[in-house]
Amino acid sequence: MTTKKQIKSDLQIAQEATIKPIKEIAEQLDILEAELEPYGHYKAKLSLSVMERLHTKQDGKVILVTAINPTPAGEGKSTVTVGLAQALHRLGKKAIVAMREPSLGPVMGIKGGAAGGGYAQVLPMEDINLHFTGDLHAITTANNALAAILDNHIHQGNELRIDTRKITWKRVVDLNDRALRQVVIGLGGPMQGVPREDGFDITVASEIMAIFCLASDLQDLKRRLASIVVAYNMDNEPVTVADLGAQGALTLLLKDAIKPNLVQTLEHTPALIHGGPFANIAHGCNSVIATKMAAKLGDYVVTEAGFGADLGAEKFLNIKARMADIKPETVVIVATIRALKMHGGVPKERLNEENIEALEAGIENLEKHIETIQAFGVPYVVAVNRFVTDSKGEVEALINWCTSKNVPVALTEVWEKGGEGGVMLAEKLLEVMNETESQFSPLYDVSASIPEKVEAIAKTVYGAKGVDFAPKALKQIQQFEANGWDHLPICMAKTQYSLSDDQTKLGRPTDFKITVREFRPSLGAGFLVALTGSIMTMPGLPKKPAALNMDIDENGHALGIF
Amino acid sequence: MTTKKQIKSDLQIAQEATIKPIKEIAEQLDILEAELEPYGHYKAKLSLSVMERLHTKQDGKVILVTAINPTPAGEGKSTVTVGLAQALHRLGKKAIVAMREPSLGPVMGIKGGAAGGGYAQVLPMEDINLHFTGDLHAITTANNALAAILDNHIHQGNELRIDTRKITWKRVVDLNDRALRQVVIGLGGPMQGVPREDGFDITVASEIMAIFCLASDLQDLKRRLASIVVAYNMDNEPVTVADLGAQGALTLLLKDAIKPNLVQTLEHTPALIHGGPFANIAHGCNSVIATKMAAKLGDYVVTEAGFGADLGAEKFLNIKARMADIKPETVVIVATIRALKMHGGVPKERLNEENIEALEAGIENLEKHIETIQAFGVPYVVAVNRFVTDSKGEVEALINWCTSKNVPVALTEVWEKGGEGGVMLAEKLLEVMNETESQFSPLYDVSASIPEKVEAIAKTVYGAKGVDFAPKALKQIQQFEANGWDHLPICMAKTQYSLSDDQTKLGRPTDFKITVREFRPSLGAGFLVALTGSIMTMPGLPKKPAALNMDIDENGHALGIF
Repeated sequence: MTTKKQIKSDLQIAQEATIKPIKEIAEQLDILEAELEPYGHYKAKLSLSVMERLHTKQDGKVILVTAINPTPAGEGKSTVTVGLAQALHRLGKKAIVAMREPSLGPVMGIKGGAAGGGYAQVLPMEDINLHFTGDLHAITTANNALAAILDNHIHQGNELRIDTRKITWKRVVDLNDRALRQVVIGLGGPMQGVPREDGFDITVASEIMAIFCLASDLQDLKRRLASIVVAYNMDNEPVTVADLGAQGALTLLLKDAIKPNLVQTLEHTPALIHGGPFANIAHGCNSVIATKMAAKLGDYVVTEAGFGADLGAEKFLNIKARMADIKPETVVIVATIRALKMHGGVPKERLNEENIEALEAGIENLEKHIETIQAFGVPYVVAVNRFVTDSKGEVEALINWCTSKNVPVALTEVWEKGGEGGVMLAEKLLEVMNETESQFSPLYDVSASIPEKVEAIAKTVYGAKGVDFAPKALKQIQQFEANGWDHLPICMAKTQYSLSDDQTKLGRPTDFKITVREFRPSLGAGFLVALTGSIMTMPGLPKKPAALNMDIDENGHALGIF
Repeated sequence: MTTKKQIKSDLQIAQEATIKPIKEIAEQLDILEAELEPYGHYKAKLSLSVMERLHTKQDGKVILVTAINPTPAGEGKSTVTVGLAQALHRLGKKAIVAMREPSLGPVMGIKGGAAGGGYAQVLPMEDINLHFTGDLHAITTANNALAAILDNHIHQGNELRIDTRKITWKRVVDLNDRALRQVVIGLGGPMQGVPREDGFDITVASEIMAIFCLASDLQDLKRRLASIVVAYNMDNEPVTVADLGAQGALTLLLKDAIKPNLVQTLEHTPALIHGGPFANIAHGCNSVIATKMAAKLGDYVVTEAGFGADLGAEKFLNIKARMADIKPETVVIVATIRALKMHGGVPKERLNEENIEALEAGIENLEKHIETIQAFGVPYVVAVNRFVTDSKGEVEALINWCTSKNVPVALTEVWEKGGEGGVMLAEKLLEVMNETESQFSPLYDVSASIPEKVEAIAKTVYGAKGVDFAPKALKQIQQFEANGWDHLPICMAKTQYSLSDDQTKLGRPTDFKITVREFRPSLGAGFLVALTGSIMTMPGLPKKPAALNMDIDENGHALGIF
């Protein structure tokens, strides 16, 4: 174990690492020179023609990394994702990471970087955390171009008879900027447009981000963009991007962004980092194109989904895997002793103290997620992501519980030891995949009614005893049925902290119902968002934003990204 | 002459062209592999270390392309810039283009592309006109991160005692979006920030764009960013980026954008396309770093400045060349028969008819710009950019006028013929440079008083008989002197259509004064903006935006960019 004194920051580890030219990483994957579009020496986009060339090749196995409900103690899901791929690579397997790309908002706000951690990171860490290859900027631009075209349409005569009180399309910035949550635009008289209430979301909350991550190719992207509902007209009929005629321009703005980004881990394992939608109002997974391309290029794809298994994995399995016809071979459920103790009632300040009783109480959260993955018919392994503060007794208690329940489990120390620290997990996974075939199927049929689909998720995944629909939601269900929008998967917008819709209920709450307050149709993405509470779609900055620690040194190297 | 039927669109010509891998273009310039950061196969960023490596090399000659006052008839200044470099290249000279990069706002609004035209274009035209290498997105992000940090500072207790009525920093989008010109932000109660009036500019109007284009290196960029005045406090004292502590983060966000972008013309002439500030509230030239790097890499740098010589060239010479210690060897003044006829009173609809009398009347506009360039002590050539509709008699009349006045002149047909059509101009330029040495010096001393500097520009460049300062401007002059801000160059914000501040006065107006209504301190850029009228810093979209014609074909190629 390292002492505190020796602990290096993620940025320090990343900057001290040897990084290979991206060409060499591409060569590992037999990518043709014409297919590789370098962005500097260490990043590249991959042409979509890769998919045509490898059309007949059998897909690699998709491994989904998910977690227990997140706590302030941290689970290290991204770190395990990267570390597991490094470990498979170390075992001689052709493994590829497929991950989401970070938003600048959290990076400059509170969270710091989002590219793994310690010795399980993707490189170049600074670039990935800053503008990367510009995908988020392209999405921001497409989103805001659509908003400008919409407001211009109204200003120029409003031929579509858009009701300015019923515009659902919002502008975005890829920043945490609370002052833009609620605004009034179009002020200043008749030359400056039509005044109306509006608001900005963070880019990753844009429906275009969700579409970007679910589209199978450029033409599918265009078809989905055309389907976005941006407003309702004076007769309360939906107005779409196709009505405005903007789908061509929006697709054009995304034509390069849609190509997956190739980078590498600290141990030179290839990584495709592409797209990054919210995991509450959207489905929280990297792009379908990146996952499918990774499966063509490698034998094992290690990918992750946002938040815990109740949000991220549920959506990966019910939305992404269904739409993209991806069959996950196995699921890794990441847990930490610290987080399980919090689920067992220990406050954050006392997590460093051994508390086996609380740990054992908190395991019920893990147990529920195991049941969920079993319900989808996918084999799984629990990964216990070790922290320096975990006591021997605590680790033993967790392992013993797993053994007694026949739960496949492995310890990982990838933060500290990189791929070497993930070898046990990798070996366990290979063993499970070898022994058990995935019987994956989604939890519900899309042709079921909206309430039936929501209930299937709430009961099977959350352990709720039922669902209450608020009057607004009930009215919307009728409208959506009348519009022919009801045969779509459901995207639940729920707190990530609890299995219930009450974020204070940790562990495994029982005897609860969830309440769906309203729905939002994401017709371009192809799902209906069910809101169980107020979901923050534009974060604010903390009193001391992370940005104020950022700088460059005299050689132009990044400082202060964590 | 081609018949109308045969005329191809710029996009068509660009897409039919053969384009060389950017590596080959870099090899022409002896750029080292480590200095070339490719962005795809046809674009690259050049490391700033190029400047260190070539520190002792003598600079190439800088040729500035400017024009008469623009009219709706068009002058083709960018086209001549590209075509001239192609012609020099064709003559065996090591020539490089240094140009501004386009904003998406006009591209998606009305103007279409901005990368030359016809057979004098830079490639890849679609990429340059869309996101290019992301520089404008990086500037947008830095600008808006600063705004978010500022509003967050106020929300979190406002330690700096910022007067929310006196915030001068605005948010930006790189789009034409009139509905954002005047907005109210921070609505929704105490959790959503502090309500205040605000507005959005287009990105190219951001002071960060001006700073980006005037900075000499990363440390100078940081120093300039720190100096931006974002607001005034309750005691009316300026609040800067340094007071907020955000300069490190902003510099970090610009660390890759600040590297110049290498592309090529249709004839494989190297082109550095980098930065693009407004030419009214800012100085309207590509980055200093690109111009200086081009001068290290080539023997001839062909660069341009925005609008006519009264705005663009004046600022290139008084601001950019002064700050960056660039000595322009010669100036090209672009004129067209059509535009001169408009200056001579012909309405747009009748420009296709021969009208030598109107042409001769309109030449006075050209004559004034010639006198201006002479006042700066720089040799010049008039480039007559031929159009199909120009009559033989009109061309002869213009040439005769030049000959009679001893004005060096050359015809160009670069739009139609590429470099071949610019050979006469290139040869004339080489002759002039050979015969006459540049005696360049700026028109005024920065240590002169603010009114003296404004008057120097108004009298010498515009031909005004004097300057009126509105009461607000007079009060600001006193404040700026008290703040020690008076020893900075002046950046005039004036209509581009007239030598006067009244856009309806074409030709060469006489017996007029200009009125400075107010000043804006751009302390990061290092100049004081003098506003003579209301300057539009956020364009609107037309009834049928160009974006609605944009699309992709089945192979992912751009359609509808003009």
